[in-house]
Amino acid sequence: MTGRGQPACARAGGIGQDEGVTTASALDPDTEHRIRDSIDRQTLLTTLGVTIAGLASGRVVLDLPYRADLCQQNGYVHAGAITAVADSACGYAAASLMPAGRDVLTVEFKVNLLRPARGDWFRATAEVARAGRTLTVCSAQVVAWAGGREQKPVALMQATMMAVDPGPAGGEEPVPTARPRT
Amino acid sequence: MTGRGQPACARAGGIGQDEGVTTASALDPDTEHRIRDSIDRQTLLTTLGVTIAGLASGRVVLDLPYRADLCQQNGYVHAGAITAVADSACGYAAASLMPAGRDVLTVEFKVNLLRPARGDWFRATAEVARAGRTLTVCSAQVVAWAGGREQKPVALMQATMMAVDPGPAGGEEPVPTARPRT
Amino acid sequence: MTGRGQPACARAGGIGQDEGVTTASALDPDTEHRIRDSIDRQTLLTTLGVTIAGLASGRVVLDLPYRADLCQQNGYVHAGAITAVADSACGYAAASLMPAGRDVLTVEFKVNLLRPARGDWFRATAEVARAGRTLTVCSAQVVAWAGGREQKPVALMQATMMAVDPGPAGGEEPVPTARPRT
Amino acid sequence: MTGRGQPACARAGGIGQDEGVTTASALDPDTEHRIRDSIDRQTLLTTLGVTIAGLASGRVVLDLPYRADLCQQNGYVHAGAITAVADSACGYAAASLMPAGRDVLTVEFKVNLLRPARGDWFRATAEVARAGRTLTVCSAQVVAWAGGREQKPVALMQATMMAVDPGPAGGEEPVPTARPRT
Repeated sequence: MTGRGQPACARAGGIGQDEGVTTASALDPDTEHRIRDSIDRQTLLTTLGVTIAGLASGRVVLDLPYRADLCQQNGYVHAGAITAVADSACGYAAASLMPAGRDVLTVEFKVNLLRPARGDWFRATAEVARAGRTLTVCSAQVVAWAGGREQKPVALMQATMMAVDPGPAGGEEPVPTARPRT
Repeated sequence: MTGRGQPACARAGGIGQDEGVTTASALDPDTEHRIRDSIDRQTLLTTLGVTIAGLASGRVVLDLPYRADLCQQNGYVHAGAITAVADSACGYAAASLMPAGRDVLTVEFKVNLLRPARGDWFRATAEVARAGRTLTVCSAQVVAWAGGREQKPVALMQATMMAVDPGPAGGEEPVPTARPRT
Repeated sequence: MTGRGQPACARAGGIGQDEGVTTASALDPDTEHRIRDSIDRQTLLTTLGVTIAGLASGRVVLDLPYRADLCQQNGYVHAGAITAVADSACGYAAASLMPAGRDVLTVEFKVNLLRPARGDWFRATAEVARAGRTLTVCSAQVVAWAGGREQKPVALMQATMMAVDPGPAGGEEPVPTARPRT
Repeated sequence: MTGRGQPACARAGGIGQDEGVTTASALDPDTEHRIRDSIDRQTLLTTLGVTIAGLASGRVVLDLPYRADLCQQNGYVHAGAITAVADSACGYAAASLMPAGRDVLTVEFKVNLLRPARGDWFRATAEVARAGRTLTVCSAQVVAWAGGREQKPVALMQATMMAVDPGPAGGEEPVPTARPRT
């Protein structure tokens, strides 16, 4: 399992690959391909330098580097960047449990900022708390890493994701996939 | 009132200046200078191309352009970018009511994504709902603009901001400013 | 429009009827009947002494009395009681825009407590921010009333509600109502 | 460790005492007394039949019974009652780490309702995620119990609590306790 085509600089400074994700819950190859392909299309993640640190069933780990151009006014990483990586981790954790042919959209999330985001990079680990046919609830924690060592958590997210049918080419609004039981 | 040094391309496509902010609630010059200076130091906003559309007492309006490098997997603007601009708008709306010498940090926010973020640019309007000595609660709405016209809201934020004493140079953790009544 | 069978004491102290709800957006009689019937079945609202202050299309107003048995440790009304009335107001605001035969469940909510809940009673006003086929986003504000006069807001809620098909008698889990477009 | 004076009926149906709380993290007697006393003054908890299932340092467990008078329209326990018990559990988990003489107020919380609240009773387990001088962030999970066995979680809460100085007798608004570092 490797990064997803980031320039090497984005992985400098200790952004790890796949630490902490057990092989026991590995994704089947089709689902992994589907998720990696979707992550690759999230251009904001490329802009922010995010890399994949782990993909498993119901659990996704993404790394955000510290960069001087991602900060708030005091030189800590901006809550918007922390949120971006946590949101994507939650979305793909949810997507990892959805059947092929479904896309995922964020319904809502709530983020508590626990500490200023200082460190060399920031690891967002998202897990599914409740997977439903239409809605999936995820939790994510973002932890700072500095000097090659895990520091304390900087943010917690609690999020709702929605399974949708992808629209036709051209960008039709996706529609929910649920249907009444028969 | 002008943008804050963004390249011209970031303001192309209709990002407006100061629409909808009445002069009646204008900031005093010192506060306005303090807030513009702090916004300028939020490097993530520069990276995202965010411009100031309005600063008033308890109300801040920021514009985020559509850019192909800020998107999620379907070509809509990523929730993390929408959140970044809404969070900063809330933070500075709170800061606009704080005394000089105080800094502001985000405690938490919750975002509901109402619609896919399609449009030429996205305007985040934040207002203070409750200003306290230590904590300030803000609400923000992010509305898409396309073809020079306001479209529908794409996101709602409800956030808590905290007044802190700026730490010494070098990045000491800021401390809350409240003190017991005497 | 009257209260919903509360004992008179629950309406004492100034809990008003229908203030602030314009007749222009009145519900059709069937929808109003459906919503009043559902509110009557929310036994927690009866336990808390909640009364209906207004029902309109996309807007529901409920009143919670101050009672000494609904408090937290300082004698203010407990956040759980404030949340109950705001949640129900949001749910029925969402339900007022749903077709007959649909039920509503709460997906999630976030509440900011703005001030200690002191007063004679507390009015929760909920409005729909975005009505979708499956999910509806609502905002609610809870305002204290004391001495017959409106005081300041004590809480803000931002909530997601879901349209479901009622299950068969006996309590089957409801299912979402969305279906793919054809 | 016993219940807190609830009528016997409130503890019927399997509401347990202290399960899952290790003695290793037991509270000192003064803190335990302070917290039990404060819980006893939360009259809403008495109204809802809530009992204490465990008090430890940074961890509080409260039980809410199923009762027909605490429900929403389908006979599930109302989200407001689930929120009340989760909020109090979070508040006292935060309070358990505060110095004597401090009181705790809820700043905000977010609740995801994972499943309809069916069961004999509902156990809210709250833990501190980040304890600060002024603000403490807590997470809580509410799990249904039925037939003497733990079922699935029905709700997740992510909350912010604030340490305040108790006001003078008579109900002055509490004030935050933080003071600038010296």
